[in-house]
Amino acid sequence: MKHKISVFEKTIEKAIKGVLKDFQPKTLFAPAEYVLSLGGKRLRPLLTLMAADLFGKNAEEVINAALAIELFHNFSLVHDDLMDNADLRRGYPTVHKKWSESSAILSGDVLVIEAYKYIARTPARVLPDVLDLFSNTAMEICKGQQYDMDFEQRFDVTEEEYIEMIRLKTAVLIGCALKIGAIIAGASAGDADLLYEFGINIGLAFQLKDDLLDVYGDPETFGKKIGGDILCNKKTFLLIKSLKNVDDEQRKELYKWLTATEYDPVAKIRFVKNIYAGLNLKFVVENLIEKYYLASLNCLSSINVPDDRKKDLIALSENLMYREK
Amino acid sequence: MKHKISVFEKTIEKAIKGVLKDFQPKTLFAPAEYVLSLGGKRLRPLLTLMAADLFGKNAEEVINAALAIELFHNFSLVHDDLMDNADLRRGYPTVHKKWSESSAILSGDVLVIEAYKYIARTPARVLPDVLDLFSNTAMEICKGQQYDMDFEQRFDVTEEEYIEMIRLKTAVLIGCALKIGAIIAGASAGDADLLYEFGINIGLAFQLKDDLLDVYGDPETFGKKIGGDILCNKKTFLLIKSLKNVDDEQRKELYKWLTATEYDPVAKIRFVKNIYAGLNLKFVVENLIEKYYLASLNCLSSINVPDDRKKDLIALSENLMYREK
Repeated sequence: MKHKISVFEKTIEKAIKGVLKDFQPKTLFAPAEYVLSLGGKRLRPLLTLMAADLFGKNAEEVINAALAIELFHNFSLVHDDLMDNADLRRGYPTVHKKWSESSAILSGDVLVIEAYKYIARTPARVLPDVLDLFSNTAMEICKGQQYDMDFEQRFDVTEEEYIEMIRLKTAVLIGCALKIGAIIAGASAGDADLLYEFGINIGLAFQLKDDLLDVYGDPETFGKKIGGDILCNKKTFLLIKSLKNVDDEQRKELYKWLTATEYDPVAKIRFVKNIYAGLNLKFVVENLIEKYYLASLNCLSSINVPDDRKKDLIALSENLMYREK
Repeated sequence: MKHKISVFEKTIEKAIKGVLKDFQPKTLFAPAEYVLSLGGKRLRPLLTLMAADLFGKNAEEVINAALAIELFHNFSLVHDDLMDNADLRRGYPTVHKKWSESSAILSGDVLVIEAYKYIARTPARVLPDVLDLFSNTAMEICKGQQYDMDFEQRFDVTEEEYIEMIRLKTAVLIGCALKIGAIIAGASAGDADLLYEFGINIGLAFQLKDDLLDVYGDPETFGKKIGGDILCNKKTFLLIKSLKNVDDEQRKELYKWLTATEYDPVAKIRFVKNIYAGLNLKFVVENLIEKYYLASLNCLSSINVPDDRKKDLIALSENLMYREK
């Protein structure tokens, strides 16, 4: 399994090197090439290749669609980082910091247009279906980002709203990456839908794991500072659950930290982590991750393909659940 | 002809009212609906309908493609206005002024995604061709915007560079609007290309006319302040020609006005208009417009359709050339 995945990963890296290469003018395309070159897990294109493999098709048949997904993902990172005013992405300066806000806007735009150019190379027989799924997913991701920003102004976000937000912002692109691979590989509509649902559950678990790592990860392994979500009052599942379940006295204190404009960051992180500990929230979220993980396995097991073929996807998702970075 | 065009215009207005209607959340879609509701000439979708009509097809067969073009056009306006820090669009506050920069970024993003959803409704037999043309055009428009921004920092832009910039930023979408109508209507490849070239020439003439109106238009009729391009040192054909052809003494004086951070706007406009007058530039640009207009008619005359059918397009482009707003 490791061998196959590493072959897929090499195929993806090689293909990405050709994307937007030698496009002119450099003022426009250098920022787009830069963000693509920063790497990351390349999880989404990998899933497209693995989905095709599940139904017996080679990487070459879905590589363009896989690149389209990765291009779209990078488009959303560039625009989101600008909207969120983030300084770093994968340890490097974000596009609007390294170049300018206009650069981030326009290089994001060319990334999404290039994504559509790659998705347009889908075989004509399934092009309308793939295009529909791709655009619907793209629209959902924008909605997810809007909800995420809207939540910043609110203290009454519910658990259901949070799960819906991360479904839109994170999970649907994982589902889409898998389903497009399945569609191009000629899977039945039922199997393609099951793989999509597998992806949604994996995506939800993945984001919840991300929220946990941001608080409980090892800064060395995780590769970024711990407590970032706490410092910017991000309405994660942990904070939402806290705002709902703490007693009145603690809530007052918590509000004070959330609304303070000047504070000691170490003390704020310590205080919020104490609240989480008091409510046993690490355990609660770990259970929730487990729930989504089991639901994903359930979807996978119903897919009409010999179990032997499913091993790689199971191993990969297990790695995602129990990762430390 | 007037009757037919006004029927087409009503068809477009009616169809646009349904776009993004009732989409949620409102924080995301209200800005997109707002910019679509501001109107404008709706020139591009009108051209798609007229192109289909030229080859004997009804508006209904191309209305989705026409909406896609108009959505894309509005996407580029929202992002360009943000990058150019423009306060007003069609006399109303721009999206980033009325809402926020994040709103302008994200509502622009949903406009371009929705554009692709409409273009995806193209009949399957021509979908790959239409999609290619649409994405290539979209990419060219981004390049045009980048050149336009790059030119802000330069005083040595050549006439050829300027024409190439407005070809990319303005003309290709007019060519694309026409050609997509032709392709869906079943025109031959040769005729579709001729109509595209017709559009490119009309587009160049259209933008040059815009540059002239910005200096010599009647503020009442034109609907915006005169001299805006002069005040922001926009590298129009007029200014480029001036920088090249003035004598050394005038050039020194012109640079002084272009680099001044504090000045009397009325005096700056008067000075620059004097330079234009000394070089007879209004006449020069009018001749250039005429040249592109004649080239466009030349393309149209070669299209393999009875002359009688071409009257509407000729009348419309004549109106565009001799418009006062």
